[in-house]
Amino acid sequence: MDRIITLTTDFGLKDPYVGAMKGAILSVNPRAVIVDISHMVEPGNILEGAFVLSGACGLFPDGTIHVAVVDPGVGGERKPVAVEAGRHLFVGPDNGLLSLVAREAGFRGAVELKDGSYFRREVSSTFHGRDIFGPVAAHLSLGARTGSLGPALERISALEMPRPVVAEDGIRGEVIYVDSFGNLITNIRSEDLSAFIAPSVEVVIKDTGLKGLKRTYSTAEKGRPLALMGSSGLLEIAVNSGSAAKGLSAGIGEAVLVRALR
Amino acid sequence: MDRIITLTTDFGLKDPYVGAMKGAILSVNPRAVIVDISHMVEPGNILEGAFVLSGACGLFPDGTIHVAVVDPGVGGERKPVAVEAGRHLFVGPDNGLLSLVAREAGFRGAVELKDGSYFRREVSSTFHGRDIFGPVAAHLSLGARTGSLGPALERISALEMPRPVVAEDGIRGEVIYVDSFGNLITNIRSEDLSAFIAPSVEVVIKDTGLKGLKRTYSTAEKGRPLALMGSSGLLEIAVNSGSAAKGLSAGIGEAVLVRALR
Amino acid sequence: MDRIITLTTDFGLKDPYVGAMKGAILSVNPRAVIVDISHMVEPGNILEGAFVLSGACGLFPDGTIHVAVVDPGVGGERKPVAVEAGRHLFVGPDNGLLSLVAREAGFRGAVELKDGSYFRREVSSTFHGRDIFGPVAAHLSLGARTGSLGPALERISALEMPRPVVAEDGIRGEVIYVDSFGNLITNIRSEDLSAFIAPSVEVVIKDTGLKGLKRTYSTAEKGRPLALMGSSGLLEIAVNSGSAAKGLSAGIGEAVLVRALR
Repeated sequence: MDRIITLTTDFGLKDPYVGAMKGAILSVNPRAVIVDISHMVEPGNILEGAFVLSGACGLFPDGTIHVAVVDPGVGGERKPVAVEAGRHLFVGPDNGLLSLVAREAGFRGAVELKDGSYFRREVSSTFHGRDIFGPVAAHLSLGARTGSLGPALERISALEMPRPVVAEDGIRGEVIYVDSFGNLITNIRSEDLSAFIAPSVEVVIKDTGLKGLKRTYSTAEKGRPLALMGSSGLLEIAVNSGSAAKGLSAGIGEAVLVRALR
Repeated sequence: MDRIITLTTDFGLKDPYVGAMKGAILSVNPRAVIVDISHMVEPGNILEGAFVLSGACGLFPDGTIHVAVVDPGVGGERKPVAVEAGRHLFVGPDNGLLSLVAREAGFRGAVELKDGSYFRREVSSTFHGRDIFGPVAAHLSLGARTGSLGPALERISALEMPRPVVAEDGIRGEVIYVDSFGNLITNIRSEDLSAFIAPSVEVVIKDTGLKGLKRTYSTAEKGRPLALMGSSGLLEIAVNSGSAAKGLSAGIGEAVLVRALR
Repeated sequence: MDRIITLTTDFGLKDPYVGAMKGAILSVNPRAVIVDISHMVEPGNILEGAFVLSGACGLFPDGTIHVAVVDPGVGGERKPVAVEAGRHLFVGPDNGLLSLVAREAGFRGAVELKDGSYFRREVSSTFHGRDIFGPVAAHLSLGARTGSLGPALERISALEMPRPVVAEDGIRGEVIYVDSFGNLITNIRSEDLSAFIAPSVEVVIKDTGLKGLKRTYSTAEKGRPLALMGSSGLLEIAVNSGSAAKGLSAGIGEAVLVRALR
């Protein structure tokens, strides 16, 4: 069976690291179908890696194996793990990177990767993507069972993620991701706004108030900001044919308030 | 049959968008062979997207399906379309992005994408690459016929492209693309120069006159500019082992004159 | 047989060139499995290309075909070649780019690419990746024998690579690569250090002395520099959760001394 293995890392695209990891996977299973999600996660930024993985992994077919490596503590105390969540498998370091997708997809179990027979013959202490995570994913793609990889874990490490709060004046959240279009993506989900009726909402960021939630970017005039529910179900602030990050001089952590319009 | 689907977008390589689109394709056809042409088109730059697609798509085998998404008007009035041209299929927004390849490969027909059964179950109004274009391409790769996707269109939207003009003093064109080597690629095709005999030509850009068309970059001395017919059949100004864009401080829109040498 | 073809180039990821080369490969062998090693080699930097290829190619299964194109002299006098080394094949320009992997994997023979029936029908003088190297690799993946491609070569061009020297005060090497984490990778191999006992070593770069070789990045305090044997067997200077290149203001060519600690 050809099985899909996705990769999400902070390795960048210049160095030989992504190629080395792919080679290690294909040396175990030459028929594995490898798909890049992103290798441009900011080095060491676990939260960003978790968010990028979460934004893409749910689209893949049942049985997909997702390898994620943002691993500043490689070779240290964090455990290498495999996680079952929803109908997918996830392989990576247990440093919080997998906790967001595990919660979203539905955590069903995890194991610590202990059985070295699933690893590359030589295991370095600085490149577990190539030596542990890639080969383990390849063995999983060949039918290895997660239970055989090592002892079960009751839980995996959780990531501190800022959550929106219901305040007196509305819902207070913040920007958690800026995409390459300059769209400001917040931690406010459509569910969080269920108390509001969309046209009666005002989204406030810095000293800009945006009235109503639009349906498309082109609803605003060119160069003007707008708020909408983005394609991953999160409230987003954008500029039509421009960058909201630049236009509003805002980035990750910027406070966002959603309040009822009078 | 394993069929090739290429992708050309302005999504960038950091965000989860490319991965999400690939997941949506593989969820419809897990055996689709997905090949990236580029995801680094400047955000919203339809002309650049058309040029990049045009520079690569013709190399692919007959029956290849090309998905192109540079779509600032996503969710608005532009139609989602599938286009038959030459021996290939093209899927994307009808905003001019597909008109260059349609003309070059030979337009054979188009349909508006209307039948929602070929789309992702939930269709957002901001991410048609994931929700419409990717899934439609995947269905085409499984053998769906373009005629079943929606009503026929007699024409698709054309892109305004600057064309070279024959003037008294020679042929006047302009730089339409700068590649990552800094080569300045113009809109002057080899056909346009058929009246000239190559060694007797001078190419003028800014106040630099380049005598003759060279065969290779290394024909000029290191660091010196030269003109040649590039690998896609367009007149190109380059610097041997350097960047013409930097060396000549020139970019897109810069005027280029080709005249007979006396 | 589905056979793996890897690509290492300086083409960048924006332009149509990588897509065009992949299309040319797939037009010869639609079942070739193409894997990117890197397309972000600095334009024209043969040494960097050789290093990136060397860092990844050894991980791939036996029989893999590696195409490498960093080719500032394209169309000029350097020969297009195919090289057998170890259990892999390499295809590219004979400008030194393949000499590092040939030496590391074990040179077994080379041919000049002469037989045009393995090339693309039209061969430009500026894009041999698309017109020669890609199609030749695709034919090799279909079972063509290297001997049929052209006349045998006794040797290929060697690359000048700086080698570490044993001096009175220790081993003197230099930084030969800076990765995207900012790690400074030197030309000093673990074998070179066999005379030392690891904890008794001091690594000196600029005016910083780093005592002992660490096992992992996280052994140092956050933000502090350390030295370790990196995942490709080369001495590396890193900063825990940071960039050694920035922290030490060092780059390629920076001198590194390893000496015994008293």
